[in-house]
Amino acid sequence: MLHFEHKFDAKIGKRAEEKIEEVFKAMQKERDSGKIGYYDLPQNGFDLLKEVEDYKKKNSLLKENSIRDVVVIGIGGSSLGTKAVYELLKDQVKTKKRLYFLENVDPLDITRTLKKINKNKALFIVISKSGSTIETTSIFKYIMEKYKFSFKNKEDMKKFIAITDKGSALSMLADKNGIKQFNIPLNVGGRFSVLSAVGIVPLSLVDIDIKGVLKGAKEFVDSFFEEKENNLLDKAYFYSKSAKNFPINVMFTYSSLFNYFNQWYVQLWAESLGKINKFGENVGLTPIHLIGSVDQHSFLQLIIQGPKNKTVTIIKIEDFKKPVKVPKLSLDFLEKVDYINGHKFNKLINAECEATYETIVDENIPADCISLDKITAENIGSLILYYELLTSAVGQFLEINTYDQPGVEFGKIKLVKKFTK
Amino acid sequence: MLHFEHKFDAKIGKRAEEKIEEVFKAMQKERDSGKIGYYDLPQNGFDLLKEVEDYKKKNSLLKENSIRDVVVIGIGGSSLGTKAVYELLKDQVKTKKRLYFLENVDPLDITRTLKKINKNKALFIVISKSGSTIETTSIFKYIMEKYKFSFKNKEDMKKFIAITDKGSALSMLADKNGIKQFNIPLNVGGRFSVLSAVGIVPLSLVDIDIKGVLKGAKEFVDSFFEEKENNLLDKAYFYSKSAKNFPINVMFTYSSLFNYFNQWYVQLWAESLGKINKFGENVGLTPIHLIGSVDQHSFLQLIIQGPKNKTVTIIKIEDFKKPVKVPKLSLDFLEKVDYINGHKFNKLINAECEATYETIVDENIPADCISLDKITAENIGSLILYYELLTSAVGQFLEINTYDQPGVEFGKIKLVKKFTK
Repeated sequence: MLHFEHKFDAKIGKRAEEKIEEVFKAMQKERDSGKIGYYDLPQNGFDLLKEVEDYKKKNSLLKENSIRDVVVIGIGGSSLGTKAVYELLKDQVKTKKRLYFLENVDPLDITRTLKKINKNKALFIVISKSGSTIETTSIFKYIMEKYKFSFKNKEDMKKFIAITDKGSALSMLADKNGIKQFNIPLNVGGRFSVLSAVGIVPLSLVDIDIKGVLKGAKEFVDSFFEEKENNLLDKAYFYSKSAKNFPINVMFTYSSLFNYFNQWYVQLWAESLGKINKFGENVGLTPIHLIGSVDQHSFLQLIIQGPKNKTVTIIKIEDFKKPVKVPKLSLDFLEKVDYINGHKFNKLINAECEATYETIVDENIPADCISLDKITAENIGSLILYYELLTSAVGQFLEINTYDQPGVEFGKIKLVKKFTK
Repeated sequence: MLHFEHKFDAKIGKRAEEKIEEVFKAMQKERDSGKIGYYDLPQNGFDLLKEVEDYKKKNSLLKENSIRDVVVIGIGGSSLGTKAVYELLKDQVKTKKRLYFLENVDPLDITRTLKKINKNKALFIVISKSGSTIETTSIFKYIMEKYKFSFKNKEDMKKFIAITDKGSALSMLADKNGIKQFNIPLNVGGRFSVLSAVGIVPLSLVDIDIKGVLKGAKEFVDSFFEEKENNLLDKAYFYSKSAKNFPINVMFTYSSLFNYFNQWYVQLWAESLGKINKFGENVGLTPIHLIGSVDQHSFLQLIIQGPKNKTVTIIKIEDFKKPVKVPKLSLDFLEKVDYINGHKFNKLINAECEATYETIVDENIPADCISLDKITAENIGSLILYYELLTSAVGQFLEINTYDQPGVEFGKIKLVKKFTK
C-alpha cells in the first residue's frame, strides 16, 4: 500500500483541469498505440517470468544449483533499476545467490568487483539494448579472456545470457554461439526497462520476488489508467508549470536501502526531462537524491535556508518490520537523550522524517510525502510505475520527447574519433 | 600531483582582482586569528597521529592484534569524510582490518551492517562533536545492550573510543568510565573535521596511510597561503558571482571509488553555502555528484540539453595503476567496436572523460578539470583541502557564515517535542 499527499496548491495557472485531462489522454494514446511499451511491461512480465522459469529448468548449471554469483555486465539503464530492486529486497529472501554488477570501465572498480566472484560458480548476463555499448562489450571481452572461456565450448556458453534488442549485433552473436538470449521490446527505452528482461532475468536468478514486483506495478498502472491516481497528474502539472521557480526536485528517502532506487530515479528524471522542447528552448528538471536521517545533518540546511528553488518529496516507510529498540539505558551525563529510551528505531527514524517534513512545509517549500506501509515487492513495483508515469506526465506537460537522449550521443562520437583518427 | 584548469572566463564583473584579494586576506585572518581551525589540522595531525600510535601500543587488544572490525558510530560530519578516504585508499593496504559505519537509525541498515561484524573482534568508535547526537547515542546504547557490554568491565571499555569536543556529555562519560577519548578542536566544525581525530583515529586503526593524506593536505594549504593556488580563488569568485545563472555545481568524477568522496563534497558544499546572507537573502549553491562513465549514460543528457544552470567540474585520474586491458578479441557482428582492442581500460575511461569534457565545453557550459596523476594518499589529502578552501572562499564572496548550520536545528526541536509532549 502506497499513500500519497502533497502540501502545495497544484492547480496553479489557467485551464489546469483541461491541460491535465489532455496529458492523461496523450498518455493513453502512447500506450494504446503501442508507441511506448513500458506501460505494458507489468502485464507482459508474467509470461516472461514463465520463460525464465523454463530456462532455469533447462540450463543444467542452474538445475544442479552450481551457480552462486550472478554477474550483470551492463551500464545505465541496463543495470540501475535492477540494482535498485535488488538492494531493497535482497534481505527478504533466503538464498546463497548473490548479484554483482560490472558497470563502469574504471579498472579499479572492475578489479575490486571481480575479487568477490568465484568464476566456477558464476553466470554472466551481458545487457545492452543497442547491442554494442562500448563499456559492456569491452568488459564482456575482458571476462572471456580472463577466465579463458571459449565460444566453441558449449559448457562455457551456458555461463552466459544476452539481453538485448532482437536483431542487434549482440543478439546475432548470441544466436551464432548458442548463448541464451532474452529480448527487450523495441518500444521500451533503457531507462524504462527494469520490468522487462533487463530486470526480470537477473532478479529472478537470485530468487528475488519479481512476481510481487510485477503485481504491484500492474496494480499501479491499471489504477492510473482507471483515473484513480489524480494526485500524480496534479503533481506533474505543478512541477512542469513551476519549473522556472523550482528547477530542482529533491527525493528524500528515509531508509538507507533506497540508495540505488534514488540513483535510478535520478537517471530516469534527468535523462528523460532534460531536453530541447519544440520551441527550441532548453527545458528540464534537475533531480537530487538524499537519504534520511543522514542528510538531515547536511543538505537539509541548504533546503531550509538556501535559495527557494527546490521541491521536496519525502519517502517514508511506516513499518520496517524490525523490532530493534533503543534500550532503556540511561548514560551518565547523557540523561537529556533518555526521552528516546524504550522506543523502536522504527519510531525514531519516522519521527525524524515527520520533523523534517513539517520543517520544510513551514518554510513554504513545495513538499509531498509518499508513504509505504512496508518495504514489499508489491510496493516497490508500484513505486517504480509511479515514477515512470510521473516522468511521462511531466514530459507531456513540457512538450518534449521524454524517451530519446540525443545529447548523450555527442560524446560517443568524440570517443570513437579518439581511437580511430 | 594535482593539476587544475578551467574553461571559463572567471573574472567577470568589476573589481574582480580587488575582491579576490579581499577574500584571500579574510581567509588569512580566519586562520591567523584561530577563529577557524581546519586550516591547521594538516599541521597538527602529525602530533595527533603520534598520540594514536602510542594508544595502539597501550591498548592490549590492539597490541595483540585481536581487533579486526573497527566500527564508527557517527553521522554526517562524523562519518562521511572518513568513509570517503577509506573507500579511495582501502585497496592500497594489505590488512585484514575493516572499517564499518553505523550511521543511520534505519533499523534495516543497522541489522544489515551488524551481520558483517564479529563482536569479539570489534572495536567501536563513538563520534559526536556535540556529544549528544540522538542517532549516535541511540546506536551506542543499542550496541552496549546487544553485546552485553558493561561500563563496569574494564576489558569491555577497551573496546570503545570516544571522539568528541572536550567537556561534552560524551567526553565526561568517557572520563568517568575509563573510555579512551580523543578531542575535536572547538574551532573545527563537523563537516571540516575529517583531518582531526574524527578521521585520523579510525583510518589509522585500519592501517590507511593517513600520514600521506596529512602530508598532501599540508602541502596544499601551505601552497594556497603562499598565493600559489590562484585558480581556486578565481573559480570561487566566478561561482559566487554567477550563482543566479548557475545555481547548481556538478562534480563529475571519473572513477567509481569517488562515490563517498562525492557525498562528502555534497555535505560540505550544501551545508556550508546554503545560508541567509547579511542582507536577509536566501543564498547558496546546490551540489550534484556524478560518477563517470556511468552517468554519461543518463545525467549528461540533462547537462547538455536541459537548462543551462549548471557548472561542471570533471575529476580525472591519469594513471589508475592497473594494467587491465581490453583483449584483442574480435566478436562476431561486433567488429565495429574493435577499435578499443588492445587498449587499457585506463585509456578507455580517460578517453570517455575527455570526450565528456569537450562536449560540455562545446556547449558553453562553465567547466573545469582537476586531474590527479594517480590515486595516492597525498593527492587525496590535497583534494580534501582544495574543496575545503574553495568552500571557505565561496562563503566569503557570498558574505555568509560558512561554518554554522542554524537551519538543521529547526527539525531537531520538532523531534524532541514528538517524544516529550
